[in-house]
Amino acid sequence: MTAPRTGREVHLTSRPDGMPTPQDFALVQRALPALDDGQVLVRNLVMSVDPYMRGRMNDVPSYVPPFQLDQVLDGGAVGEVVESRSDSLSTGDVVLHGFGWRDYAVGAASGFRRVDAAAAPLSAYLGVLGMPGLTAYAGLLEVAVMKECDVVFVSGAAGAVGSMVGQIARLKGAARVIGSAGTAAKVDHVLGLGFDAAFDYKQGSVRRQLRAAAPDGIDVYFDNVGGDHLEAAIGSLRLHGRVALCGAISAYNETHAPPGPRNLALAIGKRLTLRGFIVNDHNHLRRTFLEEVGGWLRDGRLRWEETTVHGLENAPSAFIGLLHGENTGKMVVDLSGGSA
Amino acid sequence: MTAPRTGREVHLTSRPDGMPTPQDFALVQRALPALDDGQVLVRNLVMSVDPYMRGRMNDVPSYVPPFQLDQVLDGGAVGEVVESRSDSLSTGDVVLHGFGWRDYAVGAASGFRRVDAAAAPLSAYLGVLGMPGLTAYAGLLEVAVMKECDVVFVSGAAGAVGSMVGQIARLKGAARVIGSAGTAAKVDHVLGLGFDAAFDYKQGSVRRQLRAAAPDGIDVYFDNVGGDHLEAAIGSLRLHGRVALCGAISAYNETHAPPGPRNLALAIGKRLTLRGFIVNDHNHLRRTFLEEVGGWLRDGRLRWEETTVHGLENAPSAFIGLLHGENTGKMVVDLSGGSA
Repeated sequence: MTAPRTGREVHLTSRPDGMPTPQDFALVQRALPALDDGQVLVRNLVMSVDPYMRGRMNDVPSYVPPFQLDQVLDGGAVGEVVESRSDSLSTGDVVLHGFGWRDYAVGAASGFRRVDAAAAPLSAYLGVLGMPGLTAYAGLLEVAVMKECDVVFVSGAAGAVGSMVGQIARLKGAARVIGSAGTAAKVDHVLGLGFDAAFDYKQGSVRRQLRAAAPDGIDVYFDNVGGDHLEAAIGSLRLHGRVALCGAISAYNETHAPPGPRNLALAIGKRLTLRGFIVNDHNHLRRTFLEEVGGWLRDGRLRWEETTVHGLENAPSAFIGLLHGENTGKMVVDLSGGSA
Repeated sequence: MTAPRTGREVHLTSRPDGMPTPQDFALVQRALPALDDGQVLVRNLVMSVDPYMRGRMNDVPSYVPPFQLDQVLDGGAVGEVVESRSDSLSTGDVVLHGFGWRDYAVGAASGFRRVDAAAAPLSAYLGVLGMPGLTAYAGLLEVAVMKECDVVFVSGAAGAVGSMVGQIARLKGAARVIGSAGTAAKVDHVLGLGFDAAFDYKQGSVRRQLRAAAPDGIDVYFDNVGGDHLEAAIGSLRLHGRVALCGAISAYNETHAPPGPRNLALAIGKRLTLRGFIVNDHNHLRRTFLEEVGGWLRDGRLRWEETTVHGLENAPSAFIGLLHGENTGKMVVDLSGGSA
């Protein structure tokens, strides 16, 4: 294959005020630089859109720096090396890296990690075997310290992280696993994954529905959404209960800060622990995670789903759809269909 | 001394709606029962009023059962054995126990623990060497896991617990200790205890005053009050910061649940841990606590203050005053002046 001279990339052109719109993004054609020594050129095959990216669109300091206006967005992607001036990677190697939102990526070979394209579909490295999978695994087992016979509740249960949390909890011996999701179809999907109970949070009070699903209370809450869910969980948590604070998607597009849980003082008498985390702090678990989750996948004991949008030009709408909950499982953008 | 035939006790006659009033209490004269084998009769000399008692006045399940209407209140007290039918305690022994809010207590000797009346003033066993002291010690060191060079912030810093938290933090090598209190006189008192900074939370925004006192942020927040303080602390906490949730006095008399911290989602990116606790879970620290804090007291390295109200009949107003912040240091009721 002849190396291309130009590539397309998606830029952030304005900072969203509330929910992002397609007008906040632009597809831009750019010349690709010639490779320096040690660099590779990678053709992206699939890229990730993730909820955390919404935070990076605001100009506030956070655990990852904000996206810059009129610059290319980035994020997880898997691609194929099409040109290499590095000894460590060869043409044809399939690699995981952080230069998404573009057809082609150029960079030092050290920024790309080879993955086994025969062992799993490429998109698995962006989901079940990638960042969302490790997030679920580390958050449940290391942050919330789930123990056998715990009753576990997870919000966003049909999403990339939530669907893993529930299944891992079940495989690790939870007494009962409860999930919430935003449509009847997602609730069915979650029940199909083996959750003991699930409810549609748009069809009634989270507090009442959680209480019905777990009348004796819960021990662990894995929070992907914040808001009402967190308050309901604090109400249902039993003595020494634990919350892994992973995401707050309910608030990501709010222009005014919503009130926090009004019942947080219950944490005193119940001796609750609430702990925020991000996956980057848990890379020491990656090997165990890949062995254990990889094994469950091969055995068919763990299922995963994805929602695929095709074409780089549709990456912004995939991302906006994700924030609207239009995905079941991991949302990915397939880039293999064409390029400039 | 001839054993008395009757004693006075304070009953809860109605459950307060919001801030308690004197009308919620009654002073009642009652015949004292004759002692059974193994029992002692104790004349109370000093009793404790504590913020946690407000929660027990509501008819809701909590970590201690609610007070019963038209029954005597109870709580920490120190008294002198005046009659004994037990081999383990003798007349004249000074004992710590949980039968406060009365002139005389009758019970099995096992419910009373002898204290050294020569080593410290009796009220110390209700404060600096008692439950509030252990609360400060355990909450700071075991729950918030304070480390050397941490910047520590404590609310209610002039109170029984808060004044200990700040001094222990300083003695354990905190880089900087900041306190908040509710009057200018308390702020002066706190600064006199060796806090590096203190502010009057009624004189301006907690968030702004905390930011001015700790421009580079804080590592530990010991929360006695909840509300605005907790939100301000979450805003100021640095990466891997920790909150010991000990009390929420700002909300105890609210008839509607106040909003929780609107910025709780910051806990994710900052990897914060918020942990509720009650002192009863930390009795394994009691020996270390008594050795270490007792040593600091003897060396004059740790100071403590109390606010004393005289007479059992004034126990309700002492308690109400405590909820209004009328105390500096531990609030106690001296009962040694007279009895029925």
